[in-house]
Amino acid sequence: MCMEDLSKSVIFPIGGKFESKNFAGTVWVNMLTPVGSALPIANVTFEPGCRNSWHKHAGGQILLVTGGRGYYQEWGKPAQELHPGDVVGIPAEVKHWHGAAKDSWFVHLAIEVHPEKGPATWLEPVADADYDALK
Amino acid sequence: MCMEDLSKSVIFPIGGKFESKNFAGTVWVNMLTPVGSALPIANVTFEPGCRNSWHKHAGGQILLVTGGRGYYQEWGKPAQELHPGDVVGIPAEVKHWHGAAKDSWFVHLAIEVHPEKGPATWLEPVADADYDALK
Repeated sequence: MCMEDLSKSVIFPIGGKFESKNFAGTVWVNMLTPVGSALPIANVTFEPGCRNSWHKHAGGQILLVTGGRGYYQEWGKPAQELHPGDVVGIPAEVKHWHGAAKDSWFVHLAIEVHPEKGPATWLEPVADADYDALK
Repeated sequence: MCMEDLSKSVIFPIGGKFESKNFAGTVWVNMLTPVGSALPIANVTFEPGCRNSWHKHAGGQILLVTGGRGYYQEWGKPAQELHPGDVVGIPAEVKHWHGAAKDSWFVHLAIEVHPEKGPATWLEPVADADYDALK
């Protein structure tokens, strides 16, 4: 999917580039709910090849895929390919990563579950060899 | 927007027709999260002219508009026109309705906030004269 194609699948405003050592590649994050909301919802846009590091959420997270092609992987399991319309329920304290395919932009909404339980715990990057082996 | 146009804006599966006396017109509701989830998320699709009755949520609700054109109105305030990418934070216990424009399908995600506080309270239908006066 090229950038022009992406523009057709962007529903929620892309927001600004998000500078973080927990992402390999460029990512845009737009908070759709006010700061301090009981239910933080972010629109997250990954450039092709971009993914986050392994991490876990104290209260869990739900991903709603709105554009492109990407992956979700839990530690010790195969990566799961994601497309628009897919929904991923990430249980609390389960180590995982998500991000774009090598050749596609990827857009999802990310909804924090029980954010009052605390922030995400960030771990090591996804090994390049493991990411590169994905189709 | 015709039905063919709608198909281009449907991201999440439309699900089944939802029979309810609290809606005027035909609506489709697809629960994206498991029954009993701490965070119920529904994909809601209104045919042109379809809207729900006035109601309120014990814990509030967030609407994320993904397709078509519709409205959100709080009691005593003017109706607000909605388009894809719009986000509505509905406070707890605020009387309101939402639904499609007369000439357009309308699709939104609906996320319950603090569902443990109890179910929605359903009230009277939106007066036809008030709905018909919308542009």
